[in-house]
Amino acid sequence: MTLRLHWSPDSANLVVRLALEELGLPFEAVRLDRSAGAHRSPSYLRLNPQGLIPVLEDGPLVLFETGAILLHLADRTGRLGPEGPDARDPATRAAFLRWLFWISNTLHADLRAAFYTHRYVSEATVPELRAGLSRRVAEHVALVEGAMESGNWPAGPAPLLTDLYLAACLRWARLYPSAGPATLGAAPTGRVGALLAHLGTRPAVKRALAAESIPSADFLDPVGPALPPAEITG
Amino acid sequence: MTLRLHWSPDSANLVVRLALEELGLPFEAVRLDRSAGAHRSPSYLRLNPQGLIPVLEDGPLVLFETGAILLHLADRTGRLGPEGPDARDPATRAAFLRWLFWISNTLHADLRAAFYTHRYVSEATVPELRAGLSRRVAEHVALVEGAMESGNWPAGPAPLLTDLYLAACLRWARLYPSAGPATLGAAPTGRVGALLAHLGTRPAVKRALAAESIPSADFLDPVGPALPPAEITG
Repeated sequence: MTLRLHWSPDSANLVVRLALEELGLPFEAVRLDRSAGAHRSPSYLRLNPQGLIPVLEDGPLVLFETGAILLHLADRTGRLGPEGPDARDPATRAAFLRWLFWISNTLHADLRAAFYTHRYVSEATVPELRAGLSRRVAEHVALVEGAMESGNWPAGPAPLLTDLYLAACLRWARLYPSAGPATLGAAPTGRVGALLAHLGTRPAVKRALAAESIPSADFLDPVGPALPPAEITG
Repeated sequence: MTLRLHWSPDSANLVVRLALEELGLPFEAVRLDRSAGAHRSPSYLRLNPQGLIPVLEDGPLVLFETGAILLHLADRTGRLGPEGPDARDPATRAAFLRWLFWISNTLHADLRAAFYTHRYVSEATVPELRAGLSRRVAEHVALVEGAMESGNWPAGPAPLLTDLYLAACLRWARLYPSAGPATLGAAPTGRVGALLAHLGTRPAVKRALAAESIPSADFLDPVGPALPPAEITG
């Protein structure tokens, strides 16, 4: 059945595109013109009543929420990453689930608050909230580093979907918001840094980034899409 | 294999306990004394390096993050709720996944920020942040109401695990933080309100709440555990 990804440059869909490319799944990409309000159209709101990007259609099935889409792809392919492990292996699946939800509800949720501060506080309070979120993101990186060291983090012979999700979040944390203090001032080092460095060398990763007009696959020194600002969602 | 739930009164473990009771799964409950720092002990941090509650052990498997535990239970039992539907039914599973992640990373994440404001901003800014989060939570309830009306929300002959998670979050949103402005001032009405009213009548729900010393199963007019404040995590 046809997979159809609704996307906008460098939005959360980047995670899904990375997963689709790494898993080798062909898909149709439907670009949403956010400046024209395409994500607020009645037809899109029928897919996702929040009007958020991305949506993945899998034949008649409609998925939204990045984490839900990744889990759906893992179950659809039977793999947690490009070269396994098996999505049904109990111990690896348990590790995958616990950290997939953690990325979604802690790391990604804090970034969402940092990027869309006006949904939480007034303009005067933005610097303080961003500073608090920056501290939290740094703590999150340290937590992942420790989990990788102790074997708590899910791992396989090649990056898992959780690694792709982590890397995209940390890329955004260094790249946006350009108007305010950095959410993550320095590039991650250690095992997290090594993962990010490796990802930038993978052909599937390069294809995914290029498809969103991102001219470099360097996750340690990330750049945004080579597009007019109005076309970038941030 | 033995299920073992690590818990503290009225903490996020309440969602897991509701699920275990509704699914009819026997489990061992290990109470953590937070005032004595049991969630920061080396043995607990080996289970969850964040030191957060709950953890569910399933034989040798270790799960944390409420959403991950719910998904694990759905896959373990083959059911998304006490009376079905089948956890492998594609359309219902897609709806379950998209809203399970949404509750986890949006509704629950906003409540976390409202309850633990000091992790984000200084004391002076707490009222402003809570006010913003209260607005967001009200919007979340309206979004769910619309999703229930349009058939986007996952449904079965009895409440699903997503309904239990939603209800616990909305209960907390009315109950805590007792020291500040309410996160959700009024009880939900409409379909959300009807769901909450129904849940309060279910024997499994009553058992779960009673086990955490919560004297009433009324989700529309919730009360906290009948315990000294130091024993309640909020």
